[in-house]
Amino acid sequence: MTGNNIQLDKTGNLKHFLSIEGLNKPLLQTILDYAESFATVGERPIKKIPLLRGKTIANLFFEPSTRTRTTFELAAKRLSADILNLNISTMATSKGEILSDTLHTLEAMHCDMFVVRHANSGAAHYITSQVASHISVINAGDGRHEHPTQAMLDMFTIRQHKKDFTKLSVAIVGDVLHSRVARSDIHALNMLGVNEVRIIGPHTLIPKDIEKLGVHVYHDMDKGLENIDVVIMLRLQRERMKGALLPTENEYFQRYGLTSKRLKNAKPNVIVMHPGPINRGVEIDSNVADGEHSVILQQVSHGIAIRMAIMSMVMGRTSEDGEVKS
Amino acid sequence: MTGNNIQLDKTGNLKHFLSIEGLNKPLLQTILDYAESFATVGERPIKKIPLLRGKTIANLFFEPSTRTRTTFELAAKRLSADILNLNISTMATSKGEILSDTLHTLEAMHCDMFVVRHANSGAAHYITSQVASHISVINAGDGRHEHPTQAMLDMFTIRQHKKDFTKLSVAIVGDVLHSRVARSDIHALNMLGVNEVRIIGPHTLIPKDIEKLGVHVYHDMDKGLENIDVVIMLRLQRERMKGALLPTENEYFQRYGLTSKRLKNAKPNVIVMHPGPINRGVEIDSNVADGEHSVILQQVSHGIAIRMAIMSMVMGRTSEDGEVKS
Amino acid sequence: MTGNNIQLDKTGNLKHFLSIEGLNKPLLQTILDYAESFATVGERPIKKIPLLRGKTIANLFFEPSTRTRTTFELAAKRLSADILNLNISTMATSKGEILSDTLHTLEAMHCDMFVVRHANSGAAHYITSQVASHISVINAGDGRHEHPTQAMLDMFTIRQHKKDFTKLSVAIVGDVLHSRVARSDIHALNMLGVNEVRIIGPHTLIPKDIEKLGVHVYHDMDKGLENIDVVIMLRLQRERMKGALLPTENEYFQRYGLTSKRLKNAKPNVIVMHPGPINRGVEIDSNVADGEHSVILQQVSHGIAIRMAIMSMVMGRTSEDGEVKS
Repeated sequence: MTGNNIQLDKTGNLKHFLSIEGLNKPLLQTILDYAESFATVGERPIKKIPLLRGKTIANLFFEPSTRTRTTFELAAKRLSADILNLNISTMATSKGEILSDTLHTLEAMHCDMFVVRHANSGAAHYITSQVASHISVINAGDGRHEHPTQAMLDMFTIRQHKKDFTKLSVAIVGDVLHSRVARSDIHALNMLGVNEVRIIGPHTLIPKDIEKLGVHVYHDMDKGLENIDVVIMLRLQRERMKGALLPTENEYFQRYGLTSKRLKNAKPNVIVMHPGPINRGVEIDSNVADGEHSVILQQVSHGIAIRMAIMSMVMGRTSEDGEVKS
Repeated sequence: MTGNNIQLDKTGNLKHFLSIEGLNKPLLQTILDYAESFATVGERPIKKIPLLRGKTIANLFFEPSTRTRTTFELAAKRLSADILNLNISTMATSKGEILSDTLHTLEAMHCDMFVVRHANSGAAHYITSQVASHISVINAGDGRHEHPTQAMLDMFTIRQHKKDFTKLSVAIVGDVLHSRVARSDIHALNMLGVNEVRIIGPHTLIPKDIEKLGVHVYHDMDKGLENIDVVIMLRLQRERMKGALLPTENEYFQRYGLTSKRLKNAKPNVIVMHPGPINRGVEIDSNVADGEHSVILQQVSHGIAIRMAIMSMVMGRTSEDGEVKS
Repeated sequence: MTGNNIQLDKTGNLKHFLSIEGLNKPLLQTILDYAESFATVGERPIKKIPLLRGKTIANLFFEPSTRTRTTFELAAKRLSADILNLNISTMATSKGEILSDTLHTLEAMHCDMFVVRHANSGAAHYITSQVASHISVINAGDGRHEHPTQAMLDMFTIRQHKKDFTKLSVAIVGDVLHSRVARSDIHALNMLGVNEVRIIGPHTLIPKDIEKLGVHVYHDMDKGLENIDVVIMLRLQRERMKGALLPTENEYFQRYGLTSKRLKNAKPNVIVMHPGPINRGVEIDSNVADGEHSVILQQVSHGIAIRMAIMSMVMGRTSEDGEVKS
């Protein structure tokens, strides 16, 4: 089962967290189970456990993202780790240092973990191949490739509401072409055995070979939402609007914006998800974003719990350690 | 007494700290008393107490201010809280997210407190009206409106030197028109029952209706300083000089700069205050800023103690907890 | 022995760490010995000791340097201190505040230590002369003057490999003219009693009066490396290339780049050092940088240990406290 999977150590435990692809169902379930124990930490009077005390975590964000960086920073602090926020692009390039030298320098400072965000697909894998064996790497989003911690918080949120994955029909709506979230979600949903994944969006924003991933493509949103249990809306990058890929914002909203009326096509207890930040009136109507089906803010909370779980696991701390309860 | 005061909870305890206006004398005195217990923490070998351990405080600075942000950051760290410094303006606007979504996202991350600085008057009140009930908001300066923690550290400094407020004559000198510090100080001084507040400055920098706040206006500085116990100098924003409001820097200093000679009009034991950073030779002469009457650097120290007290109180930790002594 | 040395307190203990010049051999040895006890902290599962808990350290970087700032930040965090990263240049100048007021403000916030980096030679000494007696100052590089913590980590690395300084011949190669590292290294090597220090580089990059420091100057690199035990390569600032001081990058590498072939002139067990970040193919060949003689990454690790030792010592915590072992 382990094979030459770069993400696992010899005994099959999680060593890096780079992509959902290449992992397996029992491991995803272990992560979800372990995250349960962290989900209540945020509601305690003292939101702090000593699980990673004395560990040094470096946030290497080559691409700026305050929101994602903040969730990793909070997860690290609540695990009592020390965290370095490095504006790594400035650091590496301004003095002409090559990337691998920057990485080895951070290794020599005895960092234990790199959290990597990069505009290029495969960057986290590349970095993992460069670093010493004592370092764990977590992918916080690489190009159009994967955003695996986002997928896991999505799975956690779905499981909280729906329990059993095997009977679910899940729709992912919007700009799938540019979305690393969509790619990670599809892999995770398939791995956890959902009944059906549907992809909804205009031709220009759906990759041609997407059906190879075992999904069904819909260009008509009303049809695509029929009988759906979970809707995952994707953020529409407004800058795409300026290119040839899309009509006007208004026209997009008419065809693929999620409104209360359109949501009636789905099952009555459908949940609506979104990785944030949301564009109200572009891909989602405010009534839906703030409505009874929306679990968007729960996703944010779960994001901290999932990241605490994954950061602990790659550092070798598992749920059996039982230290979370303290 | 409580009424529908947004700053107090149902039992009349401090929940948010947004403006001096709307508070009351016993509450201000409680804050000053509680701050006494923190005033010595900065001089201990170990400047750290566990009062807010495991709490998450977000510094939301929409307007940059290294000095004020640093005092809140230090206060939070010395209370053992975790602090997030968010360049919130970049975060919120660069991706087109609306403010309330940013706030709800931070709530969902289980932040406990927002420290808010904003160029718009009323911003902290607006944010307070938007956030969930478990969040406390502290105003670190909103437009020309209020800067209530500055006022409290000013009151703390005055009380350290003068004990009884009721016999004091206090002069506030300079650009009152643009000063949130002046507005907060006037409210606090009145609430604590000083004998007299005088406002000194040129016509162009004194708001027309300022006398409604129960102050006396002077345009002649020598007269205004007569028999004064406390002088609060305001910082003159140099950029105002370029507009039509003011003559040259030199001319301003001739008329309203605080010099040793001019200070002789005040009482012999007058204290001189300034919120900083000071403009030497613009609103204050170096001889006075560094002289025996100046308590300007004491204000900085007291700023940490006051902020520790207020941050603890809005989190429900009061002086009766007795944890400060440890 | 102490005299009026600004770096030492009345009893001869280290109070500030500003330059190697002015210190003495026993003190350097004490620092090296003390750093030994920190060298293993980075390899422990919990990289944290409570030696500076409750102390506040301000990083005052007037000149940006992510790498050096990061090592001080990590050293401080592993000593359990609170650290403030201040973009001091913005803070001080944007509001027209003068430097000494900024410093006194930070003092009043009860900071315990300033780590200073500045483009002007003598800046750290100047700041030391301005601050209150309870503050310790550490020079993290001032102009072309000194970079004493870098020199100490270099000495630490040399001692790890060579034990006895007195028999060593050490070559410093490259742009000595602009290098604060070279200056600090020369002082430290002389103080620790090395047999010989050689300076190798083109006429345009060697200060005219350098021989007064007791070094030998070589313009022929092959000759200069003969029988050498330690080579310290200096970083070549690429911006110098554009001036009249230097030929092309390629020509420079031909004459002074460290290659495997050239290194054969040195002793068989020579070690190669570099303060980083390295310019591969400019002053050093990749084969050498990554080769068996290179100790460049060890220098990075030692940099944390040395800074932990020095930060503890200036705060009055010495190796006799024995707290490092815990």
